[in-house]
Amino acid sequence: MNAKVYVTLKTGVLDSQGKAVKHSLETLNFKEVTDVRIGKFIELKLEGVTKSEAEKHVKAMCEKLLANTVIESYKFEVSE
Amino acid sequence: MNAKVYVTLKTGVLDSQGKAVKHSLETLNFKEVTDVRIGKFIELKLEGVTKSEAEKHVKAMCEKLLANTVIESYKFEVSE
Repeated sequence: MNAKVYVTLKTGVLDSQGKAVKHSLETLNFKEVTDVRIGKFIELKLEGVTKSEAEKHVKAMCEKLLANTVIESYKFEVSE
Repeated sequence: MNAKVYVTLKTGVLDSQGKAVKHSLETLNFKEVTDVRIGKFIELKLEGVTKSEAEKHVKAMCEKLLANTVIESYKFEVSE
């Protein structure tokens, strides 16, 4: 099983890395960029579990370790 | 226009952050995880450009700033 997890900062949380990248893009003359938000993209390989088990486990991994749910939200998809 | 950019380490490049997360998942008893790779997920907002311009510009941003193409590969999708 493969899982793709997307962890993003919640709206309203200051994204200083995103601000820095936006500024760099402006200096490179990409003036059309009005917002940049930077998150994490995590790819997991799981073995010996069914798809529904994998979904349950990945959700638990996000809650416990992969995302800081106070300031971050997450989405994930599991595929075979 | 919204763009989502996924930047991942190329196969064969050591992902020390991924290794650390895999180890942490093991100590949390998620023994079924056999591999973890960590990349970046970048969300951009662009204004005043058409979809095809946005695609061209985002590709240039990836090549110039968002990805280090020596060790990273990138994918992106542009939507309205």
